Amino acid sequence: MARWAPDAAGRLQAAALELYAERGFDQTTVADIAAKAGVTQRTFFRRFADKREVLFSGQAALESFLADWTERHADLNAPIESVISGLMTAASHMPDKTAHSVQRTAIIAANQELRERELEKLGVLAADITKGLCGAGVARREAELAGEIGVLAFRLGYQRWIGEVSETSLAEVISQTFVDLRSTLAARSATQAADPQPVASRGAKRRTRPLAAEP
Amino acid sequence: MARWAPDAAGRLQAAALELYAERGFDQTTVADIAAKAGVTQRTFFRRFADKREVLFSGQAALESFLADWTERHADLNAPIESVISGLMTAASHMPDKTAHSVQRTAIIAANQELRERELEKLGVLAADITKGLCGAGVARREAELAGEIGVLAFRLGYQRWIGEVSETSLAEVISQTFVDLRSTLAARSATQAADPQPVASRGAKRRTRPLAAEP
Repeated sequence: MARWAPDAAGRLQAAALELYAERGFDQTTVADIAAKAGVTQRTFFRRFADKREVLFSGQAALESFLADWTERHADLNAPIESVISGLMTAASHMPDKTAHSVQRTAIIAANQELRERELEKLGVLAADITKGLCGAGVARREAELAGEIGVLAFRLGYQRWIGEVSETSLAEVISQTFVDLRSTLAARSATQAADPQPVASRGAKRRTRPLAAEP
Repeated sequence: MARWAPDAAGRLQAAALELYAERGFDQTTVADIAAKAGVTQRTFFRRFADKREVLFSGQAALESFLADWTERHADLNAPIESVISGLMTAASHMPDKTAHSVQRTAIIAANQELRERELEKLGVLAADITKGLCGAGVARREAELAGEIGVLAFRLGYQRWIGEVSETSLAEVISQTFVDLRSTLAARSATQAADPQPVASRGAKRRTRPLAAEP
């Protein structure tokens, strides 16, 4: 529960969260947050780069923990296992679900800028896991896939956990998400199982206009 | 190759890309882009909401195509299959790799605001696939997992394809990415295979300080 400790950073986070919930993220200024926390704007900017960062303060610790864990525990035959165990360990040391963490999630979900920042942070987390695995000798490509799947399971698991009224721990929900991802991805249609052709050759129809989209 | 057709939208996209590459995204204004394309700013804003959107113009078509495809082709026993076939079909109708598309990817990669916007767009794409599958009767949870895995494979496959000097088509690279994700996720360590205990119970160490991070 270190996030809500009464130091300046903790007070700023609590103040920001309260103001974002009350007035909305866009209507809150750094000056408002600093005033509510009883510190100067200068103090705010010593701790946080901007109004968005105040909601993502634990991210750096999580990144370095996972880079380190996956490097120390990497199983060259199954790199995904160390990603799962690292995420579950991290989850088991994260704060309990509180009104604050539920509120934080709702504030992020309601604001496009914040959703974007969160996804960017998760991308960095995937890169750090990849780096950890590569450091242990896992091939770059496999490390990247394991890192990306890990972060996907973490994101979906966290979302589910925060939205559910249940006693299940975050670590358990994440573990279950891995199991579900595995079975979703392993599912094969009856025709597919008997058919060595790639899936897309079935049922693909020509469209008259090309799709211009790129991701 | 509709993106580079000499209509106003196509000219605006080409002009934006050229200016972003030359001067940088932050140093380019909508006025600059409009002037280069020989249209008014008003014309720009009739087509694109802002400076970022001009790089993501095909997105809406891709979203509705995939929502529709996954709904029409959903296999209730293996929803992931219709996601794979939909993405491969979409990919096979996307423009060839050109200097333009390579440049676009580099511009996005170099700018945090653009990376964030791209990830947000991919989140919308996952939600649309989920909606399509749900419309066909797939359970919400499984539809969501299939949509998220699909978008992950699409993003990683696209990245790889655009970065590679090879004749392999985007559809093939995406298909291969699914295969690789499946095998990454299916890998089990030797001890794990013989051990019914969850992974995290092995090797988890107590930390003295809780991790404050949330995703």
